[in-house]
Amino acid sequence: MSNHVYKNLELTGTSTKSIDDAVRGAIAKASKTLRNIHWFEVTETRGHVADGKVAHWQVTIKVGFTLED
Amino acid sequence: MSNHVYKNLELTGTSTKSIDDAVRGAIAKASKTLRNIHWFEVTETRGHVADGKVAHWQVTIKVGFTLED
Amino acid sequence: MSNHVYKNLELTGTSTKSIDDAVRGAIAKASKTLRNIHWFEVTETRGHVADGKVAHWQVTIKVGFTLED
Amino acid sequence: MSNHVYKNLELTGTSTKSIDDAVRGAIAKASKTLRNIHWFEVTETRGHVADGKVAHWQVTIKVGFTLED
Amino acid sequence: MSNHVYKNLELTGTSTKSIDDAVRGAIAKASKTLRNIHWFEVTETRGHVADGKVAHWQVTIKVGFTLED
Amino acid sequence: MSNHVYKNLELTGTSTKSIDDAVRGAIAKASKTLRNIHWFEVTETRGHVADGKVAHWQVTIKVGFTLED
Amino acid sequence: MSNHVYKNLELTGTSTKSIDDAVRGAIAKASKTLRNIHWFEVTETRGHVADGKVAHWQVTIKVGFTLED
Amino acid sequence: MSNHVYKNLELTGTSTKSIDDAVRGAIAKASKTLRNIHWFEVTETRGHVADGKVAHWQVTIKVGFTLED
Amino acid sequence: MSNHVYKNLELTGTSTKSIDDAVRGAIAKASKTLRNIHWFEVTETRGHVADGKVAHWQVTIKVGFTLED
Amino acid sequence: MSNHVYKNLELTGTSTKSIDDAVRGAIAKASKTLRNIHWFEVTETRGHVADGKVAHWQVTIKVGFTLED
Amino acid sequence: MSNHVYKNLELTGTSTKSIDDAVRGAIAKASKTLRNIHWFEVTETRGHVADGKVAHWQVTIKVGFTLED
Amino acid sequence: MSNHVYKNLELTGTSTKSIDDAVRGAIAKASKTLRNIHWFEVTETRGHVADGKVAHWQVTIKVGFTLED
Repeated sequence: MSNHVYKNLELTGTSTKSIDDAVRGAIAKASKTLRNIHWFEVTETRGHVADGKVAHWQVTIKVGFTLED
Repeated sequence: MSNHVYKNLELTGTSTKSIDDAVRGAIAKASKTLRNIHWFEVTETRGHVADGKVAHWQVTIKVGFTLED
Repeated sequence: MSNHVYKNLELTGTSTKSIDDAVRGAIAKASKTLRNIHWFEVTETRGHVADGKVAHWQVTIKVGFTLED
Repeated sequence: MSNHVYKNLELTGTSTKSIDDAVRGAIAKASKTLRNIHWFEVTETRGHVADGKVAHWQVTIKVGFTLED
Repeated sequence: MSNHVYKNLELTGTSTKSIDDAVRGAIAKASKTLRNIHWFEVTETRGHVADGKVAHWQVTIKVGFTLED
Repeated sequence: MSNHVYKNLELTGTSTKSIDDAVRGAIAKASKTLRNIHWFEVTETRGHVADGKVAHWQVTIKVGFTLED
Repeated sequence: MSNHVYKNLELTGTSTKSIDDAVRGAIAKASKTLRNIHWFEVTETRGHVADGKVAHWQVTIKVGFTLED
Repeated sequence: MSNHVYKNLELTGTSTKSIDDAVRGAIAKASKTLRNIHWFEVTETRGHVADGKVAHWQVTIKVGFTLED
Repeated sequence: MSNHVYKNLELTGTSTKSIDDAVRGAIAKASKTLRNIHWFEVTETRGHVADGKVAHWQVTIKVGFTLED
Repeated sequence: MSNHVYKNLELTGTSTKSIDDAVRGAIAKASKTLRNIHWFEVTETRGHVADGKVAHWQVTIKVGFTLED
Repeated sequence: MSNHVYKNLELTGTSTKSIDDAVRGAIAKASKTLRNIHWFEVTETRGHVADGKVAHWQVTIKVGFTLED
Repeated sequence: MSNHVYKNLELTGTSTKSIDDAVRGAIAKASKTLRNIHWFEVTETRGHVADGKVAHWQVTIKVGFTLED
């Protein structure tokens, strides 16, 4: 088995619904152009407030994918 | 356009239901006395355990709001 | 009242459903062998990706419980 | 039981005597105006030096108290 | 000499001109309502971009002031 | 001389008296079941407040001890 | 309104003049190839010294821009 | 597939030879009593010096293993 | 001399042999597509364990390279 | 008034008695050779254990003193 | 080419004018006694406030210089 | 036994060969002028790249040595 190299990107997903949904959205979007995403790590959870309510969640993740030869 | 100044406060919301709900509760409570809350950032997620289950979630957030003239 | 001593353990729960569910699973599992778990703190939120979707969430928590005499 | 919201403040106590005394002083002072302080966390321990001796200790704490309705 | 207690606040100043100017603006604004501000510490430097240029700087500072008796 | 392996545990001691006393209590308790504790490091200093006073100190330490063959 | 996804990049700008100028240079350069840069955060400020003077400043920023569909 | 729970331990390996060797020693030792170790992360690299040379390396790792039912 | 701008990427190299080898592999791979890599910084050292031994090392590095005009 | 430059040193004081005493010892020792020490900050609190008791405390501080012309 | 060893010092420069000026002052001062300073890194930016204005900036930097044979 | 005071210095060793070798070089160099170095801690691992290869490793360590009377 050869030694793989992975590249890690940072993305921020947004969602009006929940923290989990913001993560899922970012991964779905990234998967359209990047094959081979293997993992993610949440690095920041923020959000905007409007009218005294959470208007949308902003969750930043690092994603790792295989660099192909 | 003038240069704004924001003040940031740290709050801890609690919820028996979920992480997201604890955040929403803290923002709803703060909005009763503070107008102009614009954003929040989650800085700590903790909780209490009773009878082997999550009794309630405690989520600490920083919120930022405009200092009015 | 005597002075208690607590021990803190680090656990990683996994769930195909949500962040909250991964925490609940880790606490339920730990409670089978440890009585007196009082609190937890989330220290890391990661996950695996398969077919462009979150395959499962991995949430690491510290839990604290009373050392009995 | 309702879901509480806590507010966290940062204070710096000073003392010519000891680290512990600086913490106690900050909490005593804050308790004059804030009811319902529940906990504190030490976030920084510093001090001034004069004539080759500790002139006073400066200990910064975060304190959390209940936001009343 | 008595033992003082200080309170620390977090503010975010904004400026279209420079990092230094954003700090100065936040301190000028806070000084209108708080006497006895003694020090500050820069904790975050961010900004917004528009048309490929820095539209304004956002600098977050902690400020410490004496709690009066 | 062989190459040793150490295991590190995290404990939280509590004391109504002082920070130092909370550390001493945690080490005394741990030494009843663990031989060969060599060192500790303070990782967190917190406490509970009641009636405007420090009710008890909670000091978290990491302790290291030799894994025997 | 749809849920946006942002990508965050890390850049290091250099300038012989000032910290602010190094940030501006990095953003100007990045804007040649990336539309829709919205924000930046300064993550590191370093520099080289020659002949006892600051030869140039090196300021590292994270920039966030919208991933287009 | 069920949802697994992992436990994470902190160990410090020592070696007179190299950083890598200290890690390998800690894992070999832990594997005598713990089945199902899956991963490790290096959290601290230290060492002792004697006669102006590295006498031994001390490398602290976190290891994760499956909690069995 | 003009003011350069650098871009920083995060890569994870893997190796069955050693920490150093995982770094060298990631840099060799990245150099196939990126000219002008100047420096790297190790940000995380992890690994997988199989049969009680280090199966492979995973070392994450940040690399910086010149953005060309 | 001219612009001063300060130099910061890191010292570790040890004491068989208390955390505070270890800090005082380090400052007393440093003051024998360095005039103009102005402040200190505690950066690490550790200790050695012997016979199940704290044998001595090791407290690391940064001290700042004026560089004279 | 031989393998160099560098020593890193921490200095705090002060200036009534700007952040950049405080850094320049610290480097100019250090260069009077240390040849071969190569780089610096800003590690803390603070300041004193008087009469509601920044009285002076205090910027802490690490500087690295070659240890000569 | 008296209470010792230690001084901690930060050094950066470089090596064309390996991480371990860079640490050994820094300690050997420091030991020429400082007696009584007792321990070190690795605080940063970086390097330069030339022609797509690691040209040399730069490893920063803190070293602690006894201040003699």
